[in-house]
Amino acid sequence: MSISEKILELAKRRGFFYVSSEIYGGISGIYDYGPHGTLLKRKLENLWRKYFLSLSDNFFEIETANIMPEKVFEASGHLTNFVDPVAKCKKCGTFHRADQIIEEFLHENFEGKTAQELTQLIKKYNIRCPRCKGELGEVSVLNMMFPLEVGAGKEIRAYLRPETAQGAYVNFLRNFNILRMKLPLGLAIIGKAFRNEISPRQLLLRQREFTQAELQIFFDPRKLDEHENWNEIANYKLIILSGKKLDKLTCNEAVKKLKLPKFYVYYLAKMQQFFLDELGISENKLRLRQLSDEEKAFYNKIHFDFEIELESGWKEVAGCHYRTSHDLSGHQLVSGKSQEIFHDGKKFLPHVIELSFGIDRIFYALLELNYAEDKDRIILKLPAKLAPYTVAVFPLVNKDKLPEKAQKIYHELKQHFDVVYDDDSSIGKRYYRQDEIGTFLSITIDYDTLKNNTVTIRNRDTKKQIRVKIDKLVEEIKKLI
Amino acid sequence: MSISEKILELAKRRGFFYVSSEIYGGISGIYDYGPHGTLLKRKLENLWRKYFLSLSDNFFEIETANIMPEKVFEASGHLTNFVDPVAKCKKCGTFHRADQIIEEFLHENFEGKTAQELTQLIKKYNIRCPRCKGELGEVSVLNMMFPLEVGAGKEIRAYLRPETAQGAYVNFLRNFNILRMKLPLGLAIIGKAFRNEISPRQLLLRQREFTQAELQIFFDPRKLDEHENWNEIANYKLIILSGKKLDKLTCNEAVKKLKLPKFYVYYLAKMQQFFLDELGISENKLRLRQLSDEEKAFYNKIHFDFEIELESGWKEVAGCHYRTSHDLSGHQLVSGKSQEIFHDGKKFLPHVIELSFGIDRIFYALLELNYAEDKDRIILKLPAKLAPYTVAVFPLVNKDKLPEKAQKIYHELKQHFDVVYDDDSSIGKRYYRQDEIGTFLSITIDYDTLKNNTVTIRNRDTKKQIRVKIDKLVEEIKKLI
Repeated sequence: MSISEKILELAKRRGFFYVSSEIYGGISGIYDYGPHGTLLKRKLENLWRKYFLSLSDNFFEIETANIMPEKVFEASGHLTNFVDPVAKCKKCGTFHRADQIIEEFLHENFEGKTAQELTQLIKKYNIRCPRCKGELGEVSVLNMMFPLEVGAGKEIRAYLRPETAQGAYVNFLRNFNILRMKLPLGLAIIGKAFRNEISPRQLLLRQREFTQAELQIFFDPRKLDEHENWNEIANYKLIILSGKKLDKLTCNEAVKKLKLPKFYVYYLAKMQQFFLDELGISENKLRLRQLSDEEKAFYNKIHFDFEIELESGWKEVAGCHYRTSHDLSGHQLVSGKSQEIFHDGKKFLPHVIELSFGIDRIFYALLELNYAEDKDRIILKLPAKLAPYTVAVFPLVNKDKLPEKAQKIYHELKQHFDVVYDDDSSIGKRYYRQDEIGTFLSITIDYDTLKNNTVTIRNRDTKKQIRVKIDKLVEEIKKLI
Repeated sequence: MSISEKILELAKRRGFFYVSSEIYGGISGIYDYGPHGTLLKRKLENLWRKYFLSLSDNFFEIETANIMPEKVFEASGHLTNFVDPVAKCKKCGTFHRADQIIEEFLHENFEGKTAQELTQLIKKYNIRCPRCKGELGEVSVLNMMFPLEVGAGKEIRAYLRPETAQGAYVNFLRNFNILRMKLPLGLAIIGKAFRNEISPRQLLLRQREFTQAELQIFFDPRKLDEHENWNEIANYKLIILSGKKLDKLTCNEAVKKLKLPKFYVYYLAKMQQFFLDELGISENKLRLRQLSDEEKAFYNKIHFDFEIELESGWKEVAGCHYRTSHDLSGHQLVSGKSQEIFHDGKKFLPHVIELSFGIDRIFYALLELNYAEDKDRIILKLPAKLAPYTVAVFPLVNKDKLPEKAQKIYHELKQHFDVVYDDDSSIGKRYYRQDEIGTFLSITIDYDTLKNNTVTIRNRDTKKQIRVKIDKLVEEIKKLI
């Protein structure tokens, strides 16, 4: 079994994620989060929120609508440019994403090639329909947004947003005024985005409905080459892929050698620190990769992806995008309303650096990277702060006043931690179950507890047990996590 | 100015909410939350989460997709029954919600009337198009869901969910197994729902995209007349509208006089306690109203609305719905897969009681009910636990080491509370601004602070100031909130 098959099996059994509307066969690329997945996802989102909003007193979260009018995407360029190349099978009628079937055939990345180039490749290598081996037609482009008609007379053409970002752009001016006209201004959105992917695949990695956490930082473009906290990270080393090999460059070196602006590199560093220090990803599993002009998104001037190494290869999980004034210019043009601000004595359009994270992808990577087996046991070695439950409470047996005592401890601990109570089947099976969920500590209430007010704490990863006084329990747990 | 106009003005100025994609004229019935609105909304959602998930160790949150396949809504009955009556103007072509224009004309509630009955009323009273005074055509029905085509070949017909509930029903069996097959089982979802309303109106009260918090409680229908914690609420008084007058009935009386099952009444009580004790709604602003057979949703056997009195009248903000096995039966029939469980030695379909909350409506009610004016001052008297910021920190002036001291205190307090730093313009203007946002306490660092390490704390509602030692500050704030 591949690790992704094992993860899927575990995810279904322990309620991390599963195919949505499964009893109807589901829709490919659409998943639901079960109870333990939801706990983990909330913790991941809250960690992101806390970390990135703390980077400046002028960074704020907003919540904007999923449904946006067509004009927004005319202005942003998504109507024209947010397209995927597709090839339709002449025999069975199935649509395929053209660059992907060529990639699967030639084991090379063809993202960013034109429809014409892809058609030629299909002909040259006689690439056939992966489903029925039929001949493939010309490659055409298909817009990936979901259109909607709003209102009874179908008056308003709208779309489900393909990224959260536009919600921050169309409201930039209002928020700039609300927040007392300071730059840099950060507007964060954690929410859903929707893309009508031709070939969704790899579980949570390419979905049609997914969660993004994005921070749009609006700043004065004349200050692109500085950051007030530069010294914090000047000598911090970035893990950058240069050509085929990994390089460790300090932020100062990245500015000089790669000709990157300081204001941009500062956020590269903060993003890397988030992955390494907050999420506990190992250094050898993370890299920053600069996208070529062909590969990078149409709105970006500088574009680095953050990639994590999974069993299936290096996968993009986040990006740092220098979008310039692309979006505000577009909205100014299409709406006919000036988006310029007056700041520091000058009138101008702010530029934007976007920190964009695929929450579901990171969620999946956390499962895969923390998945461990120990003989017949599965252990999800999530960092304590991300574990769905920090603590499990077990009464040794369901009699002799042990459940009453255990319930009392359970309710006390609930004031401080995420706790689960488990009294089903043997202690061994409960350890087994909690290890699979990733519960960090397990506390057992036994007969000694009744005698001397002590309990055992078992650590998920070391399996070591210690015995502690109940009145020191909260303190002890805080020390361990 | 009506209070709703005042709220809208405040909401736009202080970043609570505003029309989404406003620079393009927006889409009616779609709003965004600004930075302070988002803080308030998160606190409301977290309070709901904490309160309702704490009602039982077997209640859990899940997160399910917004896009669901057509079969789901065939099974749930939404395809057939989730319709609004509309009348089209023969002159200007505008569609109107038929029951609403009649209601506005006759000042009576016509929800639940058939299209035929509504057509007759329009003819009888010669009700005209509110827009152009043209003649209205026959009333027809329009499905309120947003359809979507998923996939390149437009193969899959799907809908944006009109309620979060179905996400819990289609996955019930999987979650029942994951969660060790116990009843009652509660599955909560906090998320978006989408309805193509003909006439969205009243700001956040009737939107096309909105947030629901719903808890589906699956239980053994043979246990409908009991609840293990009944004694907790047996003598608790419910505020129930009987006919035209309000009655206070204990839960025991509600069971006897209104012939309601205990398992249902228990949750009526818990919902009422949430509004009164957690959200701080006054008793005279809240009532429970039982819906008639004509009014109640098509899937409910017993249906009480929770209504809050706003300037515009009593408005539904939540509902307690006894949905029986309506949904699981439907999914069993349409999917062809048994949804029965084996529990307590018997095989059966669980029944469901749904606690459903309109988060945006409650959000709006909180603004309106806590809105106060004091001469030229606006004060948002939100309960401390819901205030966007618990504490504001001000340096008296931006010199003489006061900012450094204030920043230090600000960062210390941030470890414990939601804090905002404000050093713009005079202290008086800062109080004014923070009162409008609802900030509960304001702390000023002045010249005395440098001498004796004390600061002033000002209370938003009483305007009283006390002077406290910095090393007692956290403690003192905890006492005040």
